[in-house]
Amino acid sequence: MTRPLDALADEIIDFRFKGLPPGATGLRVRELVAERRDLYTGGFITPLLTLSAEAVDHNLRSMQRFASRHGLDLAPHGKTTMAPQLFQRQLDHGAWGITVAVPHQARVARAFGVPRIFLANQLVDPAALAWLAAEQDDDSVFRCVCYVDSTRGVALMDEALRAAGAVRQVEVVVELGAPGARSGVRDFAQAAEVADAVAATGTLRLVGVAGYEGELPDADAESVREWLGLLCALAVEFDKAGRFAGLPEIIVSAGGSAWFDAVAEAFGELPDLSRPVCRMLRSGAYVSHDDGRYRNATPFNRVPQEGSLLPAFRLWAQVVSRPEPGLALLNAGKRDIAYDLGLPEVQAVRGTDGRVRGGGGLAVARLADQHAFVTVAAGAAGPEVGDWVALGMSHPCTIFEKWPLIPLVAGDGTVTDYIRTFF
Amino acid sequence: MTRPLDALADEIIDFRFKGLPPGATGLRVRELVAERRDLYTGGFITPLLTLSAEAVDHNLRSMQRFASRHGLDLAPHGKTTMAPQLFQRQLDHGAWGITVAVPHQARVARAFGVPRIFLANQLVDPAALAWLAAEQDDDSVFRCVCYVDSTRGVALMDEALRAAGAVRQVEVVVELGAPGARSGVRDFAQAAEVADAVAATGTLRLVGVAGYEGELPDADAESVREWLGLLCALAVEFDKAGRFAGLPEIIVSAGGSAWFDAVAEAFGELPDLSRPVCRMLRSGAYVSHDDGRYRNATPFNRVPQEGSLLPAFRLWAQVVSRPEPGLALLNAGKRDIAYDLGLPEVQAVRGTDGRVRGGGGLAVARLADQHAFVTVAAGAAGPEVGDWVALGMSHPCTIFEKWPLIPLVAGDGTVTDYIRTFF
Repeated sequence: MTRPLDALADEIIDFRFKGLPPGATGLRVRELVAERRDLYTGGFITPLLTLSAEAVDHNLRSMQRFASRHGLDLAPHGKTTMAPQLFQRQLDHGAWGITVAVPHQARVARAFGVPRIFLANQLVDPAALAWLAAEQDDDSVFRCVCYVDSTRGVALMDEALRAAGAVRQVEVVVELGAPGARSGVRDFAQAAEVADAVAATGTLRLVGVAGYEGELPDADAESVREWLGLLCALAVEFDKAGRFAGLPEIIVSAGGSAWFDAVAEAFGELPDLSRPVCRMLRSGAYVSHDDGRYRNATPFNRVPQEGSLLPAFRLWAQVVSRPEPGLALLNAGKRDIAYDLGLPEVQAVRGTDGRVRGGGGLAVARLADQHAFVTVAAGAAGPEVGDWVALGMSHPCTIFEKWPLIPLVAGDGTVTDYIRTFF
Repeated sequence: MTRPLDALADEIIDFRFKGLPPGATGLRVRELVAERRDLYTGGFITPLLTLSAEAVDHNLRSMQRFASRHGLDLAPHGKTTMAPQLFQRQLDHGAWGITVAVPHQARVARAFGVPRIFLANQLVDPAALAWLAAEQDDDSVFRCVCYVDSTRGVALMDEALRAAGAVRQVEVVVELGAPGARSGVRDFAQAAEVADAVAATGTLRLVGVAGYEGELPDADAESVREWLGLLCALAVEFDKAGRFAGLPEIIVSAGGSAWFDAVAEAFGELPDLSRPVCRMLRSGAYVSHDDGRYRNATPFNRVPQEGSLLPAFRLWAQVVSRPEPGLALLNAGKRDIAYDLGLPEVQAVRGTDGRVRGGGGLAVARLADQHAFVTVAAGAAGPEVGDWVALGMSHPCTIFEKWPLIPLVAGDGTVTDYIRTFF
């Protein structure tokens, strides 16, 4: 750890952290943790995002068990949380390393000592490549694996790494896409061309193949299975062509959070290659799970015997206006609430007397920058001004990003830790 | 200033600030400013949001001139930028104070010494009210004015302020809404009831009326004018009823960024009241302006002789993949780009040779978390892998929030300062 997590525990609570108690200003995070404040009576202000300590524990265990059972190496996508404390817990549970999307995210991971990074993008920025080369050359244990999907990309990387005087080679995997999908080569001929280009450089080293099934056009079980078959076939073809000779291991990687059952199945059928294979799964959303898209999309719905995930987020907002019988305004909006994959649901209402009831008859109709419009059905026990309303949201990636410091709350309401994010 | 802006200039450049040069790690912001780096060759990495120094200057001047010409006090909505440096520049240009939406934003403003805050929400959170009371009682110059729109809200505020032992009264304005709009009383009878409730407390003091025309259902010139007329009439009625007796000034406030011409007109017709009137305009988006919603909605389109605003944001992303003739993938997505009021437009392409051309034939078709999908029209000079692509975006509020440190760039590409935001 070049910058230990201790530094986060030493941060001072101040105006930077929305939702945290104004009365705690000046305390260090570790001191506030030690106070074990109650979420509801401890001086926290709304809007306030919370994570369930138990749900996070459950999800970390559940996903790692799934991966281990299927011989998969987990490289959770760190872009979801951008939380070094959660990166560390994923590593402690047995993850191979952390996946990221852009060099900035790699820098955050490295700042907290993540030893292995999978950068799921072609990295052609000279300044970022110079940084990566320096990180690699300063730390012989550090590994970073990037995508390549074009000969031009390979040429740019090679040029930048040579200009930076890189000593160690940068490990790359050929990214396989599909017609109409996101990045990645469209066929095996292009893949071979890119691999040839890599082999011709002195700065890059081909270590495998990878891709993302989640961006296939109209991805469904059949198209995902078919594409995963192609990815495995590409690994076999490259291996037969001797492209992986001398490697300690070959990386074959896929998998977001919607098809990891299919990834496990396809990778389970991958024949033996000439070298040991690292079957890498990159799911990220599982840590927090959600109350929307991923609740519906998780493969555990199809294979419940394989595990389960629990929604860990709860956003508390306060009713600040009840201007009409059918309308309540909350003091949380686009700044606080994810809205790109559906609006939140109302899960509970906590009165100023501390009593909690369900959210029946209440629905979030729309969001302004700083307000949520909640419709109150005729006859519903509408919330009153001052009540706290609990929202369940969709899409972990756009939830985490809105909150720099997130209380981790036990089932009894005790805040047991604070999760720091860097976006 | 309880926390001078100097503290921001002393911050260390590190992994927290996406886009900033990895090679600048360890420098203080003031040191990096002094280096006057070139945006394109200074080691910055993509994605990277920039602000035009000239456009920001122009917009600050233009809006303040408009306000002064019409006798309006500007209390720019700080939620837009959450940037203490920009707050200070707004104050230096003559703003009355800064508007905020939630107590967390008030804390940021206060941490940087903003002397007057308009909190455009009913504030009923006891912990936040205790904080506000302490701020007020510690600093006799500090003023904070909040909304009230219900007798219950007034009762909760009074209870919390009494429990907190508040000495100074909290200034409040009755918020006027409209049927089908956001918060605020729906008619004058409710307004009077709320004002009576305020008068019956010892902790609150009524200082005016306010509202937000931008949330009227299907707001148009006619409905906005009509509502502004009601707001002025409410001020007159309250004044006649003696509700403002003894005040140093009466606040009448409205105005986002889409109807400030109508606000100026309506407030210009406000008859003399028994006390001096602070005609307060709360526009926020003008500082950066945009290339979408506000480009279309700015009142300066209707009254160009009154002033103009320039779009100040430009987001640079890099082409990381050209997998098909009609498709380019950029390394910026929902994490970096505002998408709630329309997708960005491609404004320019900068080749790896430094040559800049227009964005003709290129369009952002959709965004993933970390990627933009750019369609390339047949025959268009498509961007190549490694090129930087400049995007113009819609909605300042959701642009600023995604970037903690934003280079301020002069027309010649020199970075002259860095704007820190706190979300």
